[in-house]
Formats: sequence, C-alpha cells, structure tokens
Amino acid sequence: MHDGDGNDAGWKTRATRTVFESPWLRLQQDDVTLPNGDEITYTFVDHGGYVIVLPITEDGRVVMEHIYRHPLGRWLLECPAGGLDGENPITAGRRELEEETGYRAASWEHLGGFYVASGHSNERMEVVVARGLSEDGELDREHTEAIELEWFELDTLIERARRGEIEDAPSALALLLYAARTPR
Amino acid sequence: MHDGDGNDAGWKTRATRTVFESPWLRLQQDDVTLPNGDEITYTFVDHGGYVIVLPITEDGRVVMEHIYRHPLGRWLLECPAGGLDGENPITAGRRELEEETGYRAASWEHLGGFYVASGHSNERMEVVVARGLSEDGELDREHTEAIELEWFELDTLIERARRGEIEDAPSALALLLYAARTPR
Repeated sequence: MHDGDGNDAGWKTRATRTVFESPWLRLQQDDVTLPNGDEITYTFVDHGGYVIVLPITEDGRVVMEHIYRHPLGRWLLECPAGGLDGENPITAGRRELEEETGYRAASWEHLGGFYVASGHSNERMEVVVARGLSEDGELDREHTEAIELEWFELDTLIERARRGEIEDAPSALALLLYAARTPR
Repeated sequence: MHDGDGNDAGWKTRATRTVFESPWLRLQQDDVTLPNGDEITYTFVDHGGYVIVLPITEDGRVVMEHIYRHPLGRWLLECPAGGLDGENPITAGRRELEEETGYRAASWEHLGGFYVASGHSNERMEVVVARGLSEDGELDREHTEAIELEWFELDTLIERARRGEIEDAPSALALLLYAARTPR
C-alpha cells in the first residue's frame, strides 16, 4: 500500500474540472469518493514542474540569483531555475542557466527529483549540478523576471544553508543535497 | 535591492482579487504594473504555511508517515506535518505530531523557515525537531488523511535522503538540514 506501487488507496475520482488556468499553473478540482463512502472535493495545483540548477565554477564559486518574488513582496536568493514540461531535466537546465545567467556549463549531473507540496500540488522539482562554467551564453530573460546575479564561494553558501539562512526551500535542498553527496 | 530590505522592485499592484478559495488554499490574482510600464496579471497561491516535524526517539529512530496524496495518485513517505496559520511553529508541531501519530515529545527545536515555491505561492514551511518521544498522545486524524506510520533508524533515513530517495522535498530538506547541523 506504499510508495510507488500504484495503489490508489481506494480513492475514486468521479469527476474532474479546471477551476483556473494560466500559462503558469492550472487549478484542478476533483470530486472524489473515499474508501468509507464519504464524498469530497479535492482541489490542487497542476504544474509541469521545474529544474533547479546549482552552477559551480572550476574554482568553487556559485552563481546565484536575487529574484523579486511578487507573492512574497520581496527579493529572495535562489539558484537559477525554470519550467519543465516533460523535458529532460538536464536539457531544461542548460537552457534556463544560459537564459537567466548567460553562463554555459561543461558537465551536468542529475542529483534527484522531489515533490514540492504533495498535499495541494503535483509539482515536481529536478535538481541538477552544472560544473565548469563559461560566460559565453546568451541572456534571454522574461520581462517579468527581476533578477540580479551574485557570486558566492560554494563553501560559504553551503554553510549558510546549514544555518537555515537560504530561505528558498528548493535552493536550500539543492545545496544540502550537493553537500551531503560530495566529500569536501 | 536584495533580500529582506522591503524593496518592492518597483512592482505596483493596481488591483487584487480572489479567483478561487477553499479552506486549504486561496488563489489570488493581482493586476501589476512593472517598472518598465508593462501591465501584467500575476496569479499565486495564498497559503497559511505549515510545520514539518522530524520526530526522533532517544535511541535514534524516527516515525514517518506513508500518506496517500491525491494530486500524485500515489503514496509518499513524509515527515509528520500540518497547517500553520500565524501560529508558533512549535505549538503547531506539538499538535500535529500528536494528532497524526499519537506521540508526544519532551523537547522541541526550530531549525528554520523556508519558502516552498516562491514563484507562484507565498507558502512557508517551518522545520522543527522533536526529541524524546512518548506514546501517550491522542490520535485525531482528518477523514481525508490516509496515513500509515513506519519507524526508521535515523541514520538509514538520512542515508536515503542523501541518495535522493526521499521524494517529498520538505521531508528531504528537514532530514538533510538536521544531518548538516548535528555531528554524528
């Protein structure tokens, strides 16, 4: 009855509808009958997912983004990231890193995939590491992206993540996952 | 112009409306004028946030939950967690741990707070560690919660998180944050 065995826990979806849709997210509402016969309505975000990139130079520096986040009304320090819709995470990572930072990377590694908010969204994030950066890409940001780049020493950034100071959850997870995997 | 200084990046909200609302989430839509004069519509999830609990026994075992997640159509292994609406994370953590698992804890520590999906949600998660569990609480689950408990050795679970096998992002972040903070 657990992970990945396809068991639907006896939840039966009787009807499904879209209650909101934009190019960025869709809100889906299902009429569901629970195993005990109760009938409920379950609403969740249908989202194509995204890739988050930890871009590291040969000499151990990371390029991060200060992004203005309208839902928070403030700037947040984040790893470069971008939408993914059925694409290979590394293919999407290459494009997003180049478009947002102007950098390309020599080697790419997929560290893992995670569900972001499983209770009310099917959104999945893929974490990739990009190594060997070169500044020969072409910036191509969307006009709604208010972004400023800042370079950090990798060790400093990981130490900030350990202290809980990287407030963007996906970026903190990417940094701590990388640190846990990589002997330093 | 960066984190936490209150700068709004010159984004001006002209109007705001609710396009969907349930007891669990609200979808807010704002009409925004960007610094370059462009007028856009920005839609995001308004969510009260939640607390996620890493519950550890004196002898280094953790109680985890297999939860059926309708948005994914599958079971996911997660740390106990629950809604938070302006509450102290530890107060909410005590309640959620007891209601979902029947356990109480002798000591509590707040490890950090994180934004879950800053591009389209203002949702924040608070990570707390609960130590010294005793099985003297009272279960009180919502009828939409399909949950089965499973015990793990803490070291085994952290190793699984390091390998990217804990697919619930908040749980993976809680485990890796705890591991990074705690000499073992």
